[in-house]
Amino acid sequence: MDNFNFYSPTEFVFGRGRENECGEYVKKYSSGKVLIHYGGGSVVRSGLLDRVKKSLQGSGVEFTELGGVQPNPRDTLVYKGIELCRKENVGLILAVGGGSVIDSAKAIAAGVPYDGDFWDFYSGKKVEKALPVGVILTIAAAGSEGSGDSVITKEEGLLKRGTGSDALRAKFSILDPELTQTLPAYQTACGATDIMAHVFERYFTNTKEVEITDRLCEAVLITMVKETPRVIADPDNYEARANIMWAGMVAHNGLVGVGRSQDWNSHGIEHELSALYDCAHGAGLAVIMPAWMEFVYKHDVMRFCQMATRVFGCEMNFEDPEATALEGIRRFRSFLHSIGMPVNFEELGAKEEDIPVMVKKLRYGEDGKTWGFVRLSPEDVTEIYKTAVRAQV
Amino acid sequence: MDNFNFYSPTEFVFGRGRENECGEYVKKYSSGKVLIHYGGGSVVRSGLLDRVKKSLQGSGVEFTELGGVQPNPRDTLVYKGIELCRKENVGLILAVGGGSVIDSAKAIAAGVPYDGDFWDFYSGKKVEKALPVGVILTIAAAGSEGSGDSVITKEEGLLKRGTGSDALRAKFSILDPELTQTLPAYQTACGATDIMAHVFERYFTNTKEVEITDRLCEAVLITMVKETPRVIADPDNYEARANIMWAGMVAHNGLVGVGRSQDWNSHGIEHELSALYDCAHGAGLAVIMPAWMEFVYKHDVMRFCQMATRVFGCEMNFEDPEATALEGIRRFRSFLHSIGMPVNFEELGAKEEDIPVMVKKLRYGEDGKTWGFVRLSPEDVTEIYKTAVRAQV
Repeated sequence: MDNFNFYSPTEFVFGRGRENECGEYVKKYSSGKVLIHYGGGSVVRSGLLDRVKKSLQGSGVEFTELGGVQPNPRDTLVYKGIELCRKENVGLILAVGGGSVIDSAKAIAAGVPYDGDFWDFYSGKKVEKALPVGVILTIAAAGSEGSGDSVITKEEGLLKRGTGSDALRAKFSILDPELTQTLPAYQTACGATDIMAHVFERYFTNTKEVEITDRLCEAVLITMVKETPRVIADPDNYEARANIMWAGMVAHNGLVGVGRSQDWNSHGIEHELSALYDCAHGAGLAVIMPAWMEFVYKHDVMRFCQMATRVFGCEMNFEDPEATALEGIRRFRSFLHSIGMPVNFEELGAKEEDIPVMVKKLRYGEDGKTWGFVRLSPEDVTEIYKTAVRAQV
Repeated sequence: MDNFNFYSPTEFVFGRGRENECGEYVKKYSSGKVLIHYGGGSVVRSGLLDRVKKSLQGSGVEFTELGGVQPNPRDTLVYKGIELCRKENVGLILAVGGGSVIDSAKAIAAGVPYDGDFWDFYSGKKVEKALPVGVILTIAAAGSEGSGDSVITKEEGLLKRGTGSDALRAKFSILDPELTQTLPAYQTACGATDIMAHVFERYFTNTKEVEITDRLCEAVLITMVKETPRVIADPDNYEARANIMWAGMVAHNGLVGVGRSQDWNSHGIEHELSALYDCAHGAGLAVIMPAWMEFVYKHDVMRFCQMATRVFGCEMNFEDPEATALEGIRRFRSFLHSIGMPVNFEELGAKEEDIPVMVKKLRYGEDGKTWGFVRLSPEDVTEIYKTAVRAQV
């Protein structure tokens, strides 16, 4: 096991109706005014925003608000938020929404106490200080409610960049599974795929003998394999929603990746897809991740056999381990298809002729390869995209 | 899933040699003088105390020290520690040791800023404020490095009482598996048993459909079943030690119990054994827990089948589920025996004739029963003790 630090200081407030306690938690972590930050109209239409305001009013907390966060949140709104917070002397930012809203709130939180341009933090500078952030989560997917990460897109040139710091971890995150019950099946499935991807990126490691982390990874994956189809079949299944929502936090607060090297190539390769076609991140991952697995499995056949048997219930083929490894990948893709995810370029709306552009845009190290479980050359990445073009269940 | 809060704000610093960074972490969480708190001579003999002091000196941190913490830490030393901290104007307490040392440090931390008698906190009063506590852990067992709990024994009448508060969670906990390599096999096995017990007390629940918590429980248990025999066979196996040490934290910081009712009867029943015979807590649990399982398994045969198949690798007997449940319990007891734990009264040094005294001392609710997975009458508890008298592998 490699040496590591693990720090997840967020207070998680989980369950039915807990958003009505947000006033109390805001007061616990800040004495000033609150900026309510959110996206489109759904939090307004559902009445959630009204309930949040009522709770704040009930606790005697003053607030101002800033809506309009887009998927792939933009720097332009972050600048607006920073200005507003300074003008109104805001003490805490309350993100009401999914990963994009939370990421935008984190960016504003880092920018307010900083003299320079907040984009510095998305260009390599470490965030040391930020306003406190609170979260009311409305979709189980990105895991931003428990992580110290934030990804922002620069409007000019659509440059997508991330930053990470413990200073950006939310002070509290309210997770009410009922808030996710109105989500369309497609978004629910995209979220589930993202959650599973966050685990797989940590599961495929070159560090040996980290049994506890392996088993924790598998705990989340097995839960997702069981609970996701139940939610797709019955959107109002609170228990299944609850399991998925908590699994989504556990998948990305850092716990299931400690003590070992990680991968993250599928995220990078997918990123070029969503940048080009504006497809959902989870949908892109559904197309890329099994293709990536098929390309790299020979690097560690036994690890793929472990996934196949422990997560997807395959029987181990002791005479032909590769067959078990491939059967595990096949079941993963088939699972993704069964929850309504695309599994190839056509289903995603991507085009084979764009592959060279995407391969070129991807970032490589000085020796021309990516980082991770298997370091990939542009030729390797081309091969993975091509596998994704023709993939079938 | 029941509503819950989960809050584990401790910074965990894990790996080889990390104790040499303690000066840096102390400075991060306090600006004042440090009280180094420890137990007997082993931290002195091993040179650990010297390395801790060197690190503190290197960071320019002043310190004072208080050793002498006993297993089942006493109130008398806590009073001494509180007085010392006030006199020396201590800003942080650094616990160097196992659960007893950490529990004692937490008690001192709560007592220093409190005007009344610290024992109030162990008589029902909630700790709202405490000095910051840092930890350097030397044994994987109690989980106090990640929990907000503390248990102290009142010298007068040997009254053992606990308290719990998020204010008592350590600011940082340094976990170096190498520090546990010198532990005798018996202590290592007692610690492993305690870790498994912390999970089982949460695993046996009456709340349905908490798949994610179930699977996280099983992740820890499976890891312990795999890694403990490796460490008993080879005390210097760093990887196995590392997996156990991290599993011990995960087992007790609250994560594997969220969203559901819990049990804790085995802890209560064991407590009377260690109070009477001064045996190790883990050894008492090894005797009690399988006996408790045999008494309650009919309450939820399927849950015991789940344990048997997922944790102990039993094949499910679909014609006779009870046989599978019992086989799981048999394998658990056999596992405990294999790592050198006692499995009955004689091996523990307990006496059948003392059962009535222990049954009487146990705490019951107003209706005369304990709380938990199955609420137990004094007759039930008697039966469990009697099963433990005659248990064999």
